[in-house]
Amino acid sequence: MLSAATTDLPLGLTLDDVRAAADRIALHIHRTPAMTSRSLDEYCGCEVVLKCENLQRVGAFKFRGALNAAAQLTAAERAAGIVTHSSGNHGQALAAAGRLFGVPVCVVMPETAPAVKRDATAAQGARIVGCAPTIAAREATVAREIASHGYTLIHPYDNWRVIAGQGTAALELWEQAGPFDAVVTPVGGGGLLAGTAIAIKGLSATCRVFGAEPAMADDARRSLESGEIQPSLDPKTIADGLRSSLGERPFSVIRRLVDGIATATEAEIIDALRRVLERVKIVIEPSSAVAPAVLANGGLDLRGRRVGVILSGGNIDLGPLIESLEARWLH
Amino acid sequence: MLSAATTDLPLGLTLDDVRAAADRIALHIHRTPAMTSRSLDEYCGCEVVLKCENLQRVGAFKFRGALNAAAQLTAAERAAGIVTHSSGNHGQALAAAGRLFGVPVCVVMPETAPAVKRDATAAQGARIVGCAPTIAAREATVAREIASHGYTLIHPYDNWRVIAGQGTAALELWEQAGPFDAVVTPVGGGGLLAGTAIAIKGLSATCRVFGAEPAMADDARRSLESGEIQPSLDPKTIADGLRSSLGERPFSVIRRLVDGIATATEAEIIDALRRVLERVKIVIEPSSAVAPAVLANGGLDLRGRRVGVILSGGNIDLGPLIESLEARWLH
Repeated sequence: MLSAATTDLPLGLTLDDVRAAADRIALHIHRTPAMTSRSLDEYCGCEVVLKCENLQRVGAFKFRGALNAAAQLTAAERAAGIVTHSSGNHGQALAAAGRLFGVPVCVVMPETAPAVKRDATAAQGARIVGCAPTIAAREATVAREIASHGYTLIHPYDNWRVIAGQGTAALELWEQAGPFDAVVTPVGGGGLLAGTAIAIKGLSATCRVFGAEPAMADDARRSLESGEIQPSLDPKTIADGLRSSLGERPFSVIRRLVDGIATATEAEIIDALRRVLERVKIVIEPSSAVAPAVLANGGLDLRGRRVGVILSGGNIDLGPLIESLEARWLH
Repeated sequence: MLSAATTDLPLGLTLDDVRAAADRIALHIHRTPAMTSRSLDEYCGCEVVLKCENLQRVGAFKFRGALNAAAQLTAAERAAGIVTHSSGNHGQALAAAGRLFGVPVCVVMPETAPAVKRDATAAQGARIVGCAPTIAAREATVAREIASHGYTLIHPYDNWRVIAGQGTAALELWEQAGPFDAVVTPVGGGGLLAGTAIAIKGLSATCRVFGAEPAMADDARRSLESGEIQPSLDPKTIADGLRSSLGERPFSVIRRLVDGIATATEAEIIDALRRVLERVKIVIEPSSAVAPAVLANGGLDLRGRRVGVILSGGNIDLGPLIESLEARWLH
């Protein structure tokens, strides 16, 4: 266990912790819009309100949890700095959060991570440390960095302060557009789903909370059914934010509070992605498309209901589109 | 001259006409958000507020003008129906506006128009009439349809009611986020730029108004310099909404009220498109990218100023992106 005791809270986070997180981060986050689209309603078969965390700073909800954790460091922890492992949105979010508070940030990234992600994280002022692309190498590298620098680990999802921060998106959505019959979020490591469940179940006795994940990476569904965390073994899914296994802390919340987890095929995820881009006219990443996909494929029986959907982020590689336009229009 | 006298207003539209249009269409349009982005500010070298007409119904500002014109038809005109020529956003917008008011709509489209545009317009209940892809064929077809059905022409931009409707986007933007040092819009036929100039010059004695157009289709710039409408001869630009020549009515406003027109190359337009998609996380069409492009390339000397930018629409073909994802992820 790498997580430092000081970043932990007692088990049993409540809505009050999410409210406290919301107050703590309010000055620094975007209060992202809640959007609706008749065309998307028709596609999903229910009344959908989208919480646009693709429009959040760093392009993802991850900034909320990273900021809530960074804001609660002690003076000594701030001085020593923080570390995490992430090839994606959490690394960039933590780098941005650390920069805001003047805290040194180290991000351990597999050497196979795309240069564009390394560069974006480094541009936020983080120190990047490469490692081999295995879980063992990643954990060993993080442990070594902690040993030599005294860093505090801010885990991407297995951290109560991160979970409370992620829950603020659902809290905001409820304030903006609630009540809902159900709220659906994508689930990877489980931080967003757990935070959402804590917020929503605290706000409403009747609103249901569901997770949405790729059928190719259905470890959360299998974990919920079996009652034990099922590992996710290098799943092949376009939803790159949802390839992680569930964390212990998120799972302890999810098994208590979440009403179910539904899955979508890769084709359904791409179709939902296309619908949101073309009809809602906002840029989302594939992980964000999984929730509308499970509404559209009937995996969740929410026909005619009023449903809040958290769009996790907007960090998608648009290279193929731009290259095709350049090939056609530039000579 | 095809335009029916009853759709005309006396020359010299004022802010009051734009305000009246805003009241007339308020119940049916989206009050689209005004968005900001630090990253876009850095790119443009000034403080930019985007008016997101890509999030308007039908995906473009064109719905405003079409609705304002359709709302003012006499009972006899409503019964007979309306006609326009457009292979793009105006046709779809007019079809949607006609449907709202129960007015039959006929859209004359070149037979070369993409099936997806024909289908989208037909899906709004419009009757589609094909013609050869020349201006002469288009005008002859419209004239024939008017002669046989008694339709009223709603020209895409050379119509005062349409111009007043387009001006409501700038009026809203000013209410949401004004004042500005300048407002910039793309310019094709000139309806949006003329309506914007009428609104903004009525609201402010000092705010400047500029048009932005592709260097490959710089007829508005040449028209403004020469004092006479310069035809646009089949220009090769990615900004498909900006290939038209200026209309007489819009030009009479533009030459009086607009402070200048700047141009951007195709590469600059594609670069600005990429920045807005990647950083602001909203989907825009190439025509919308021309305004940020002329800010970024220094064509307008607005460094450090506060600038309102009207994004015209979000109807871009995302096929290349979706196909690339399908090729990689579906087996």
